[in-house]
Amino acid sequence: MPRSGWLFCNVSLSEVEDVAQHSFEVSAITLLLIDELERSGVKLDPQRALSMAILHDWAEASVTDFPYTALKYLGSRGLKDRMEQRALEDNLRSIPSGGRYLKLWQEYSEKRTPEAKLVHAADYISMLVQAIKYKERGNNSKELHELWQAVHEDLKPYMAEFKPVKDLVKEFDKRYSAISS
Amino acid sequence: MPRSGWLFCNVSLSEVEDVAQHSFEVSAITLLLIDELERSGVKLDPQRALSMAILHDWAEASVTDFPYTALKYLGSRGLKDRMEQRALEDNLRSIPSGGRYLKLWQEYSEKRTPEAKLVHAADYISMLVQAIKYKERGNNSKELHELWQAVHEDLKPYMAEFKPVKDLVKEFDKRYSAISS
Amino acid sequence: MPRSGWLFCNVSLSEVEDVAQHSFEVSAITLLLIDELERSGVKLDPQRALSMAILHDWAEASVTDFPYTALKYLGSRGLKDRMEQRALEDNLRSIPSGGRYLKLWQEYSEKRTPEAKLVHAADYISMLVQAIKYKERGNNSKELHELWQAVHEDLKPYMAEFKPVKDLVKEFDKRYSAISS
Amino acid sequence: MPRSGWLFCNVSLSEVEDVAQHSFEVSAITLLLIDELERSGVKLDPQRALSMAILHDWAEASVTDFPYTALKYLGSRGLKDRMEQRALEDNLRSIPSGGRYLKLWQEYSEKRTPEAKLVHAADYISMLVQAIKYKERGNNSKELHELWQAVHEDLKPYMAEFKPVKDLVKEFDKRYSAISS
Amino acid sequence: MPRSGWLFCNVSLSEVEDVAQHSFEVSAITLLLIDELERSGVKLDPQRALSMAILHDWAEASVTDFPYTALKYLGSRGLKDRMEQRALEDNLRSIPSGGRYLKLWQEYSEKRTPEAKLVHAADYISMLVQAIKYKERGNNSKELHELWQAVHEDLKPYMAEFKPVKDLVKEFDKRYSAISS
Amino acid sequence: MPRSGWLFCNVSLSEVEDVAQHSFEVSAITLLLIDELERSGVKLDPQRALSMAILHDWAEASVTDFPYTALKYLGSRGLKDRMEQRALEDNLRSIPSGGRYLKLWQEYSEKRTPEAKLVHAADYISMLVQAIKYKERGNNSKELHELWQAVHEDLKPYMAEFKPVKDLVKEFDKRYSAISS
Repeated sequence: MPRSGWLFCNVSLSEVEDVAQHSFEVSAITLLLIDELERSGVKLDPQRALSMAILHDWAEASVTDFPYTALKYLGSRGLKDRMEQRALEDNLRSIPSGGRYLKLWQEYSEKRTPEAKLVHAADYISMLVQAIKYKERGNNSKELHELWQAVHEDLKPYMAEFKPVKDLVKEFDKRYSAISS
Repeated sequence: MPRSGWLFCNVSLSEVEDVAQHSFEVSAITLLLIDELERSGVKLDPQRALSMAILHDWAEASVTDFPYTALKYLGSRGLKDRMEQRALEDNLRSIPSGGRYLKLWQEYSEKRTPEAKLVHAADYISMLVQAIKYKERGNNSKELHELWQAVHEDLKPYMAEFKPVKDLVKEFDKRYSAISS
Repeated sequence: MPRSGWLFCNVSLSEVEDVAQHSFEVSAITLLLIDELERSGVKLDPQRALSMAILHDWAEASVTDFPYTALKYLGSRGLKDRMEQRALEDNLRSIPSGGRYLKLWQEYSEKRTPEAKLVHAADYISMLVQAIKYKERGNNSKELHELWQAVHEDLKPYMAEFKPVKDLVKEFDKRYSAISS
Repeated sequence: MPRSGWLFCNVSLSEVEDVAQHSFEVSAITLLLIDELERSGVKLDPQRALSMAILHDWAEASVTDFPYTALKYLGSRGLKDRMEQRALEDNLRSIPSGGRYLKLWQEYSEKRTPEAKLVHAADYISMLVQAIKYKERGNNSKELHELWQAVHEDLKPYMAEFKPVKDLVKEFDKRYSAISS
Repeated sequence: MPRSGWLFCNVSLSEVEDVAQHSFEVSAITLLLIDELERSGVKLDPQRALSMAILHDWAEASVTDFPYTALKYLGSRGLKDRMEQRALEDNLRSIPSGGRYLKLWQEYSEKRTPEAKLVHAADYISMLVQAIKYKERGNNSKELHELWQAVHEDLKPYMAEFKPVKDLVKEFDKRYSAISS
Repeated sequence: MPRSGWLFCNVSLSEVEDVAQHSFEVSAITLLLIDELERSGVKLDPQRALSMAILHDWAEASVTDFPYTALKYLGSRGLKDRMEQRALEDNLRSIPSGGRYLKLWQEYSEKRTPEAKLVHAADYISMLVQAIKYKERGNNSKELHELWQAVHEDLKPYMAEFKPVKDLVKEFDKRYSAISS
């Protein structure tokens, strides 16, 4: 499944990131941030955070990546979450521990626990990584730049709460600005 | 924008049909069927039918191709149509004849006029053409076969109403069955 | 079938536009321009214009997209047209309305009626749209820039005759210039 | 980075799985198996198993996926491991928790703890999943079939030790055999 | 530049062989056959044969791969050769040894010397290799099978004249037949 | 087989050069340089140089393109050569002239004869050609620029020894610098 957001940034279908690649990146960033956060004094349950990172996009197997640009036509953000939840329930029905995964996904989508917040931060940071990749390949669309800025807006609360997130974002800002074009 | 249905049939992202290719195919099939239908005595407004074929998927520019498999999680088919209509309204706002196109799209989505029915038939026939292409390239997934049968179900009313549609479908049935695998 | 012109602009085979995508774009631009032209007082037969847009590249199914750069080695532009006409005759032989399509294609290739001129204008405008797309993805080849200028040369008579064509081209000029690189 | 094994099975470069997609699949399978194993009475540290799954191929970022077919020309299997370890040491030097990850990777490559064995089993199962995907797309190369059998050989000790692994492999065997061709 | 023949066999644009890959294969097959032919007593100038293999498709840099299916619409086979010769003359004008290459190309296209015949044989054998590759990936189109047979027809004189060519073709026949589907 | 070096320069898997394309380019550059070198008074055996160019990467069929970045983790450059030699020996065992090819490859890898030096120069020049291609498509990664400079370093001895190599490199330098970005 392609990550639809990049298609709106004029990334070609042959270069678009897919959901598996994205989920791996989010998991790897989560793993790295867990240690940084623990060092900076945040208490976390690593197992729950890692599990959440791995499964946060499983619903997209049957629902695909619902595009950001279409949210306003759907009625409410809540509906997208409900749709994904129903899909996930269906997919997990036959799996013995399905209920456990569903609960983890709900925790993720409610963004309240430190683990859920961390995975959301990793999700957004992974978009910065990808945007840098596309800019470095030459993409200079207005949409890519707007997405870069929107992601920063989304990252603000996590940068305020978690210092290692703030540090990492600043590092990526430097790399992004350094790309000539 | 990729046509999401094929991704569920294990077609790779590098081979998946996109919405522009699909829209061209639907338009070409519509053009061919208009003449056949006129010859068989059906009265049609060709301009309206061709316009509808060209614009029937314009909403997907901002909404992408909402997957068949996700419809049940959305609540109702009606919602998908409303979402597409809102997106189309937005996209067409700045275009002087936008209102005309929106009306054509509504006519299409209501499936009542002969022109709207013809374009729906062409839409489904285009899926048969594409399924044959993938089967011929080796795809033998269960999902492709199920999609082939679901499309036949969808085509039934149009095959009953329009003889040229029935003839064309039969021809494709022969080609599909002839593919060894 | 890939559109060969882009390959000479260093566009990779995995990103090159194909003939179906191009034909859809030409059809959509034709549809939009018909309304603009009618509003500006030009009299047109929409059905004929739309049909022409849909079928103008059908010959390429057996002849592929003969490259611009090779025209001079062929002897004459006339020969390319004759080759396409023979291919089209062959392809349409078994289709009851084949003769009608062939006549439309000839009208198109003679560039005399307003409908034929409109579709040629749409054909060139579609190349501007695509060039913008490639430039936005980073392509900064000399050949892309030369193609941009050659297409402008080809568009001149249509810009002089049809004000909406002129307006549209100016809009694309602005977008093209705005792309940093 | 492409997974080189599939290229020897005549999978095209445009369809070949990459290391990120593979690592995600291994992580997801590990997550699912952890619960099954715990239910069947095996004692595991989930955090360590998940971390290992996420990072088991990090060395390939600078070393790429060293091909199976080339192992015999390298001298010994041991050398490949040493090469990956040195690359990983280099990559992790600047990361505060780098030492922890290196230790996890070593644990993984020694295949002695239940966590390391689990991730190796998930690694092989992920290859079965991918082989099914390619077979379903039409691939009927001798090499794909041989790889399928070699992976089964590699899975034997894990099937003997972990019942959920055995059950999962049997399920995939059924799916593989069911693919006509 | 894609090799157009495969596109008519329903090979996707993302898997189609390009002219550089083909030229390498022809050169490698020529190299192997030179030794076999010398062993079987044929006298050859290896340098001329290898040079011819390397440059036999250079004209396609500006003319692309003119499709087999379009030859009949061009008037005569002779015209395709003249077109390629003019393109090559143009491309080689600025190169000091251009004249030498042009002469080698003419020798190739006249198919009279043993070296020219050998490279033509290698050209056709390379198509067998590629066809096997596509069949093994699942392609079961009628067109692929027809192309396989047409190439055999083209190879007949070379099989009759050169025993190593005959042996090689027989080997590929066995591999082709062994592919299930 | 993809050429791994470009993947480290952020070139996508769908645009990465493969070993066959590279080998063709090296062969074509070798052919052109042979004539230039002969004109400038260098004595060469063209047949041996062309054969070497065609076969210099045959080992990669079973060993893939071992990445530059991993050499330091392997122990020594010598080991990579030994690995390739063993693979080549294996691959050529069944071919009657296998011994001859192996000797040519050894001559190539020892870089002592003028023919071996020429093919190495062509190998590096082909990387310049490819780097220009990627830069022109928008790639502005630091790694591409570093690779450009490393290749120049590698070319130095050949530029000093062969004037036509020096001239060609200077020409490519101009083209590279002229690419805006």
